[in-house]
Amino acid sequence: MTHPILNPTAVCQVALVVKDINQASEKYALLFGVPKPEYIITDEVEKARTTYRGESSPARAKLAFFDLGKIQLELIEPMGEPSTWLDGLQANGESFHHLAFMVEDTQAVVKALSEQDVPVIQQGYYEGGMYTYVDSQEKYGVVFELLQNF
Amino acid sequence: MTHPILNPTAVCQVALVVKDINQASEKYALLFGVPKPEYIITDEVEKARTTYRGESSPARAKLAFFDLGKIQLELIEPMGEPSTWLDGLQANGESFHHLAFMVEDTQAVVKALSEQDVPVIQQGYYEGGMYTYVDSQEKYGVVFELLQNF
Repeated sequence: MTHPILNPTAVCQVALVVKDINQASEKYALLFGVPKPEYIITDEVEKARTTYRGESSPARAKLAFFDLGKIQLELIEPMGEPSTWLDGLQANGESFHHLAFMVEDTQAVVKALSEQDVPVIQQGYYEGGMYTYVDSQEKYGVVFELLQNF
Repeated sequence: MTHPILNPTAVCQVALVVKDINQASEKYALLFGVPKPEYIITDEVEKARTTYRGESSPARAKLAFFDLGKIQLELIEPMGEPSTWLDGLQANGESFHHLAFMVEDTQAVVKALSEQDVPVIQQGYYEGGMYTYVDSQEKYGVVFELLQNF
């Protein structure tokens, strides 16, 4: 046992990028036998302070959530560019995008991951918290998202 | 609310395909601060009764599991062919492979999914249960695995 870089039990979300949030939400609502959720739109860059590869980005996304009990399924329709969401959709079509973990100290996790050659791709804020995507695809096979609620 | 095709709260596993189970397990063990798990090898075709696209397949895989508390992370190194595991690795390199759900009646779920134009890709048995991968990539953006323990 060593000190974890990422707490494995803090996994909270599996996310997909989709072309059309309404169509994708409808398909999953039917699959799971639940009402179609309303989507939300991420904040504008002024409020979200979105950065992509270290530069400010006007990209936003439409998000819809399904409660899977243990974790959440997030559907993401990219809006504008550049973003890790659009990168995923352009590279792979509608597909898995990331696995999210709650963290208590984003800066500490970002530092530990950067020491593993895993840099930040994108960061931004939402009401009550912040998110960070890291470029863990090559090393770990998937993109991780760090979610910190304040 | 309609009758679910797939029970959303029965999600149990996120899985990745990897090139080398030992290397990947070591990286994740370090990331999560846990001991490196031993891998298992899926049964031979005679015992597993593995089928791929309806035909018998000798493909096997090395599997390693990490307990994420709420769900399980599975790492899969394909052995032999044809398999959905090798398809994933060849198409996308080390990457997300599937989202798994426990089911009580594989046949009923397979029938309901086939009515949604989602056919079976691969099936097989393990000690105490059976697994079924369905070709949900195009319609739902990810491959689903149905797991039924007897």
